[in-house]
Amino acid sequence: MPDIPKSSKIGKNVVIENDVKIGENVFIGHNTIILNGTEIGDNVVIGFNCVLGIQPIGNQRMRKISKNHNQLVLKNNTRIGNLVSIYSGTLVAKNVFIGDHASIRENVIIEEGTVIGRGAIVELNSKIGKKCTIQTLAYVTGDTIIEDNVFIGPCVSMSNDKYMGAEDYSLKGPYIKKKAKIGNNASLLPAITIGENAIIGAGSVVTKDLKDNQVVVGSPAKDIKS
Amino acid sequence: MPDIPKSSKIGKNVVIENDVKIGENVFIGHNTIILNGTEIGDNVVIGFNCVLGIQPIGNQRMRKISKNHNQLVLKNNTRIGNLVSIYSGTLVAKNVFIGDHASIRENVIIEEGTVIGRGAIVELNSKIGKKCTIQTLAYVTGDTIIEDNVFIGPCVSMSNDKYMGAEDYSLKGPYIKKKAKIGNNASLLPAITIGENAIIGAGSVVTKDLKDNQVVVGSPAKDIKS
Amino acid sequence: MPDIPKSSKIGKNVVIENDVKIGENVFIGHNTIILNGTEIGDNVVIGFNCVLGIQPIGNQRMRKISKNHNQLVLKNNTRIGNLVSIYSGTLVAKNVFIGDHASIRENVIIEEGTVIGRGAIVELNSKIGKKCTIQTLAYVTGDTIIEDNVFIGPCVSMSNDKYMGAEDYSLKGPYIKKKAKIGNNASLLPAITIGENAIIGAGSVVTKDLKDNQVVVGSPAKDIKS
Repeated sequence: MPDIPKSSKIGKNVVIENDVKIGENVFIGHNTIILNGTEIGDNVVIGFNCVLGIQPIGNQRMRKISKNHNQLVLKNNTRIGNLVSIYSGTLVAKNVFIGDHASIRENVIIEEGTVIGRGAIVELNSKIGKKCTIQTLAYVTGDTIIEDNVFIGPCVSMSNDKYMGAEDYSLKGPYIKKKAKIGNNASLLPAITIGENAIIGAGSVVTKDLKDNQVVVGSPAKDIKS
Repeated sequence: MPDIPKSSKIGKNVVIENDVKIGENVFIGHNTIILNGTEIGDNVVIGFNCVLGIQPIGNQRMRKISKNHNQLVLKNNTRIGNLVSIYSGTLVAKNVFIGDHASIRENVIIEEGTVIGRGAIVELNSKIGKKCTIQTLAYVTGDTIIEDNVFIGPCVSMSNDKYMGAEDYSLKGPYIKKKAKIGNNASLLPAITIGENAIIGAGSVVTKDLKDNQVVVGSPAKDIKS
Repeated sequence: MPDIPKSSKIGKNVVIENDVKIGENVFIGHNTIILNGTEIGDNVVIGFNCVLGIQPIGNQRMRKISKNHNQLVLKNNTRIGNLVSIYSGTLVAKNVFIGDHASIRENVIIEEGTVIGRGAIVELNSKIGKKCTIQTLAYVTGDTIIEDNVFIGPCVSMSNDKYMGAEDYSLKGPYIKKKAKIGNNASLLPAITIGENAIIGAGSVVTKDLKDNQVVVGSPAKDIKS
């Protein structure tokens, strides 16, 4: 175990590997595991039964794993729920909230004040801006860019693979611009751009780029007639 | 640890905080955590790696948390799967089954004999009636009312936020009446009412209230032509 | 604890019940639980906070549970993520990868080289062929057959219950033939057959059998016009 400040409170059966830094006033719940390379800021709250700082593994049918994912950083005042997994090589900025059962992969950046809902999954190489809301069970695929103040409703689904496994190296997630709002259970196709302030209705299937301020619904999603 | 009846069986590495009551013939699986304020009835089975009795936390962008969520009550014969999280301030009635990886928030009531599928999430302030089936990966949003004998298919998605984060205090989930049946992966918009015995086809997007016995499919959902 | 080969590495707070077999060069992460009847091959990697070898339970409203699910077998080179649950009575073949937070039920067969994404759920009595990709948060319902080289996109939803709980014993999942590709968040109705090489667009709702090589999109899914 590393040095732990007296102001921090560590639960029972917690495993903290040697190469971990822990700030002041940190709370770590029972049975949580903090793996080598994790750096935890001040006033961070981590729930029960979490696994933080996971090194990526794969099998021979999955993409090659870069070896540079050395560190998970949780900045001050971050709050992590229960039964959460977060990989090494990821940065979680100040005041971020990550809900129970969520999973965040390697090489991800989550900026200040963003909320990641319970059961939500953020895949590798994605970047989520400031003050975004990614709701419960939403799926942020790999190689996605989400700008600031975006709202992603519950159960929204994204994809980054145009050829559905049939060709190599064609992976590209959506690019979602500032203040866009995506209704619950909408589906986004790979590599589309969603413009600023665009609004997508619940359950819509978005197959093409959307302009700034465009409002669409349906399957496939079309402009709302006014 | 509190007093535990001899008839109850507690696994290894289990953490039971002091202010917990445990009935007769209870089974608690290895590595499970029972937090202060939890009351467990007789013949309750709790799986492995669960976290029960969680106090709500949030961040400054989420809604205020009431401080009155003091107790999680699991009534007799309740069965809880593995890797499940349940919050304090919630009542789980007799003979309820909660599947693996499910998450139940604070201030929820789940009535007698209901089944909550694995990976399903029930958000705060919701009430689920008797003998309902909430299938795998279904999402019951906050402030939802579900009457008795309702069937919610797998991956059904609900929402309670008409303005998708743009305005405060407009949260209202759906109101689903007795014996309604909702097909897999259907999407429900906020604040709609689903009438008694109504049937919603798989993948439908329900944008308006449904009357009793109405049968709808499609995006947006419309009456089936006979 | 059973005999563990010196070449295998077991984390802290790991619970391994007596009737477990562990091969050479196995890694088992901290806080993971291996229950009676589990057989682990050589070079298997199991992450943190997992529960493997679970005996099925249910309540009186769920289907009867067969008592023959005695063994979980993980063949050589299998890799299991973190916070994963797998039931007894299931066979995971060589070189399979199972992502974090996934759940695999009893009486399931997963064949060689298949990838099961994080948060994906595979229900009981299902069979998944060789070199399939079942992506993140996909839901494989009970009584499903998936042949070799199938691609199931993220958040795909299946159902096996035509009558949505209203009648007994009508459960039958889809039958998905070789090399079919299913786009993200598509919905499949119960008991449909998807032909070889068929392609289903993202967000589609598939209500009828598809022939070999058929390409469909929409709600309900129809042939793409060329």
